[in-house]
Formats: sequence, C-alpha cells, structure tokens
Amino acid sequence: MRWRGVIEGYREFLPVTESTPVVTLNEGNTPLIQLHRFVEGLGVDVELYAKYEGVNPTGSFKDRGMTLAVSKALEVGSKAVICASTGNTSASAAAYAGRANLRAMVVIPEGKIAAGKFVQALIHEATVVQVKGNFDDALSIVKEVAECYPVTLVNSLNPFRIEGQKTVAFEVCDQIGGAAPVYHVLPVGNAGNITATWKGYVEYAEAGRVPRTPVMMGFQAEGAAPIVRGEVVENPETIATAIRVGNPASWSEAVRAAEDSGGFIDMVSDEEIIEAYRLIAGREGIFCEPASAAGLAGIIKYAAKGYFRGGDVIVCTLTGHGLKDPGLPQAVLPEPRTVLPDVDAVAELLQL
Amino acid sequence: MRWRGVIEGYREFLPVTESTPVVTLNEGNTPLIQLHRFVEGLGVDVELYAKYEGVNPTGSFKDRGMTLAVSKALEVGSKAVICASTGNTSASAAAYAGRANLRAMVVIPEGKIAAGKFVQALIHEATVVQVKGNFDDALSIVKEVAECYPVTLVNSLNPFRIEGQKTVAFEVCDQIGGAAPVYHVLPVGNAGNITATWKGYVEYAEAGRVPRTPVMMGFQAEGAAPIVRGEVVENPETIATAIRVGNPASWSEAVRAAEDSGGFIDMVSDEEIIEAYRLIAGREGIFCEPASAAGLAGIIKYAAKGYFRGGDVIVCTLTGHGLKDPGLPQAVLPEPRTVLPDVDAVAELLQL
Repeated sequence: MRWRGVIEGYREFLPVTESTPVVTLNEGNTPLIQLHRFVEGLGVDVELYAKYEGVNPTGSFKDRGMTLAVSKALEVGSKAVICASTGNTSASAAAYAGRANLRAMVVIPEGKIAAGKFVQALIHEATVVQVKGNFDDALSIVKEVAECYPVTLVNSLNPFRIEGQKTVAFEVCDQIGGAAPVYHVLPVGNAGNITATWKGYVEYAEAGRVPRTPVMMGFQAEGAAPIVRGEVVENPETIATAIRVGNPASWSEAVRAAEDSGGFIDMVSDEEIIEAYRLIAGREGIFCEPASAAGLAGIIKYAAKGYFRGGDVIVCTLTGHGLKDPGLPQAVLPEPRTVLPDVDAVAELLQL
Repeated sequence: MRWRGVIEGYREFLPVTESTPVVTLNEGNTPLIQLHRFVEGLGVDVELYAKYEGVNPTGSFKDRGMTLAVSKALEVGSKAVICASTGNTSASAAAYAGRANLRAMVVIPEGKIAAGKFVQALIHEATVVQVKGNFDDALSIVKEVAECYPVTLVNSLNPFRIEGQKTVAFEVCDQIGGAAPVYHVLPVGNAGNITATWKGYVEYAEAGRVPRTPVMMGFQAEGAAPIVRGEVVENPETIATAIRVGNPASWSEAVRAAEDSGGFIDMVSDEEIIEAYRLIAGREGIFCEPASAAGLAGIIKYAAKGYFRGGDVIVCTLTGHGLKDPGLPQAVLPEPRTVLPDVDAVAELLQL
C-alpha cells in the first residue's frame, strides 16, 4: 500500500537480510514524466521520458544508494559515516545518518560548492570540514580516515551505494510496464550512476522482468570529460558542479557499462547544458540541476545527428532538483521589474 | 502501473471530464514518513507521520491544486494564468503553465521573497512583476487584471486549487490503509490548505473509503496569526515566509474546517518554529521549509500540554522543501571550518 523506500520495494535484488535495519526516507518511487514540448524541438518524434530524481527526499538520486549504505553501516555497528562530496552525496549522507542517529562527517573542497547543497549537510547536523584542495584531495583524506578510524566511508567506493542506485532501472522498467527503454541517457561525473543504472537493467533482464536491456548513453561536460578524453583532468571546470570530476571513481566500470550496452560516453559544452536546462524548465515545467541537463543536451545533440528513430523510447535521468543550485538561474535570468500597485501599470508591463 | 498525477489518481473525486486536458508533472504520491526520533522528544508515544509534500515537482503542496487549475484554464481556452504569490504558488503556476504552453504572470510584493522560490518563477519563464506593497496589494491587482483581461486567476480564490489540494487527504488515507489519522496537523497561512485537506477527508468518509474523519489542528505564526487573534494583521511578520499572511483568503472556510472536525487553529512563535525545523532536520533527515515546521512546533506544544494519548495516529503536512528557503539555515548555522588536506588535521577537527 504505502511506498516504503527502495530497500523494501526491491528487497530481493539487494544485499539485505531480515536483520538489516532499514534506514529510509521513503526515497525512490520518483515520477517518470513524458516530455512533449521538448520533443517538438528535436526534429524526430521519439517517446521521451524524464526520470525526475530531483524529487527524492534530499533532492537527488543519491538517496537511493544512501539508504542502503547507511542501513549497512548501522547493521555492522558503525557509529559514524564519512564522505567527500561536492554536494549531493553529503546532503544525502547527512540526512540518512541523522535519521539513523549516526554521526555524519563531510569533507569538501574549499569553494565552488552550490549554496543549496552545502546548507543541507549543515541543517542535517553533519560535521563539515573544508580542505584546501580539489575533490580528489578530499576523497583521499576520507579514505584514509575510514581506514584509520572506526568510521564507514559512504562515497561511491562503498559498494552498497551502487547496489541501491541500481533500483532506478527497476523502477523505470516497472513504470514503462515490463520493458526497458531503447535508450537510457544520463550525465556522467564520478561515473557511479551509469554503472549502477546499467547493473540494474542487467539484473532485471536476467531475472526475466524485462526482455532486453537499453543502450546506455552517458554525457560528461567538455571541461570535465576525462573518460571521453581518455585522461585525468587535473582542474575540471564546468557550470554543472555535480559532474565536475577529473578522475571518476567508477571510470572503468562506466566504460564497460557503455560498451556492454552498445552505447557510449560523449561530452557536451556548458552552453549546450545551459540551453537544455532552460528548455526543460521553460517548456516542460521541470527544474533540474545543471548537471542533469547534460543528458538532455546529449539527446539534442544526437537527435540533430539523426541518431534516433521515430517512436524510440528514451529515458533520461534528471539527477537532481534545480533548487540544489539556485545560483545559476540568478546569474542567467533577468531581474523582475518593479512597478507601483496599479492595474494599468501591471497590465502594461505584462503587455496585455 | 505508473503514477500519472493527482487528476488521474483521483479522477472520480475531481471536477474533470474525459475532455479535460490533463496538465500534470506527476505531482502527488508523496512519501508518508514515520517519525521515531522526533517522537522520542515528545514525552508521549504517538504514531507520528510526516506527509512530505516538499517532494512534489516544484517542491511544495501547491502542485496538487495547480495541476487542476491549469488543466481547467486550458480546457476553457485561456492563454495565460496570473497569480499574486510570495513564492510557492508562483513557482507552481509558472511550471504548470510552461508545461501547458500557457503564459504565466506572477505579481509579487517587493522584497522579502525567498530566493529559491523567486528563481523558480523566472526559470519557468513566467513574467514576474514586483509591486510596491504587501501581499494583499498584489492580490488585489491580479484579481483586477483577471477581471479586465482574458487571463485566468490561479490564486487559491480559484476553486479548482482547493479541489486539487484535497487529494492529499485521499493519499494519506490510502497510505495508512483505509483509515484517516486521529489528528491532521498543518501550518495555516492563506488557509486554503487546511480547508482543502478537511474537504478531502469529508469526501472520502462520505464515499465510504474511511470510517471517520480526523481532528484538524492548524498553526499560524504568532506574528501572522489573524485567525487566532480574530482580526486582520496589517503588517504580518514571521520567519516562515510561506505563511506570512495578514488576511487569509480562506479565513472563514478554515475556521469552519477546524470547528467541524472538532479541532482548532492556534499559533506558535518563530523560536518554536525554528526549534522544530532544526529538530526534524537533525533527528529525522527531513529538510522542510520553515512554514512547514509550524505544524511540528504545534505538535510539540500540545504534546507538552498532555493533549495526545499514546498510540494516537497523527499526520503532519510538511508543505514545502527546505531548499525553497536556504537563507534561514545560512543565517542560523555555523560556517564549516577549513583545514589543510591532512588526515590528522581532519581527524582532530572531527574529534576522532
């Protein structure tokens, strides 16, 4: 009757037992929204759906993996969790740790953190430490802390994160109705999500729930595209902060996922990301974080190349809510105008 | 199989026909989350659930009413919608209008608008106009514009808003499993939500879906408590911006809802609101907007009075996501500390 989160929803596919304590905020069960006006601009009549992960409890897909990672930390008697994160992971870790009465410790690179993400770790009472350095420096430190102290690492190196995140594929298949899409498109940063989503499709197909798996299409930002370029990017730069990663943790797994599915990982520019981000907000009423729009930008790019055929079912993961990063619209959009409270003045401004 | 939003979910209870175009972002179907650690502090062992409306598409419960209001505007051939709003309504109106290819026009009082809310109307391409004056001045103007021009008003004066919003009661009953809670608690600002929620419970009971209706408990902020004080508040003031309303549109309906249910409308202080807001974030991992915490603060207040009995099933609507108003945590929480990227320095800061 009542949705009880991804562990209860897909228990048989997850590494839990009856004795695993379930720490959940009823994450998952997110909307699969068909896009019509966005498709009008593509020049090909595909059946496109957004899997809107921004309406998870902390505003991103990370909650799917975190429910499992924190439940397993509690199961083994851990008293604290730690992660390095530029935002979404720390927000989710702090929330689930709070729910579980575990301490949360978050190490972040100094500066360049979206205000909305940063705030979440703090309000959920995580201990937040900024280090001078980049994301990779922060990750090295939390790994060392987790080795030296009785603390559970909940970055995507924690295998339970991937296990939980794979449930998005199960949900997409169930929402479509016993079938996978032809294509699944998503942004690629630390590369755990494409890895997890592919794992989910493979397991659902092996279990006979769907007849076949989709082609996986991943998109990095041009300024943070180590997988596409085939080399570590020392100082990754992109407006899409959630995928600003120069040395992805799940690099080889992501490459294998793309290849095994018959797909690929490519890149899009910040300009293309912003265009897609504004299109989906203006034409479909969906506000996603800039990183989420990398997948949409990839769809626009490949539609223009004639890659898709009419009727193709495409699902695009929108990884996080636009409220996570309100700074971008404030930077790109006009200020509203101010008038006296007079109906004619308002009507004139509104061009009525 | 796939959730298709509140109109498809509860069509038989809503004023729609087969020819009504359904404009939806698959709103509703929001989590009902049982609270355990929050209850520990109450001194009475109630069965308390948060109805987490912050995970609706635009981050608030307003989407339930807006799907219906915009669908009906489209049905009658309207080309634009207009509203006066301090935030959540304008965000929702802009999103649904965008999805429907209608123009959205938003008139807001100058200043004091939560940044995250303001941004949403802009990213969804509403025409936003600030007027010098308060919320009531803005409301007067949009009413006049809707009378003089071919534009549909989508403030809560639009009766379809209340009709859509009542679906939250249906969902709560379905999630509990064929029963209403003993108490339903929620914040009161413009007073449409308590009116709508009560209407939903009454209709579900009349239809035989649940055996009885709950007691409704509404809470205003002390600085914006016209219903409790029995007079219009000329300059309402509270940190909970979403309920900073001095002359509620649904005043008499809200009073009647409270009375008919055997409940009441009372008030809580900003200090009590902030305490509840921090408690639910820290202990349960749920980040709600400050206004949402007014209901929680009311529960704390009445638990301390001995109002509840052990085992009472209480549902509290958390009206919006905390990311809507990131300014408050930034104001009340400490800045994170910065250290060199060294494991011992980090461990020391973390008191490991």
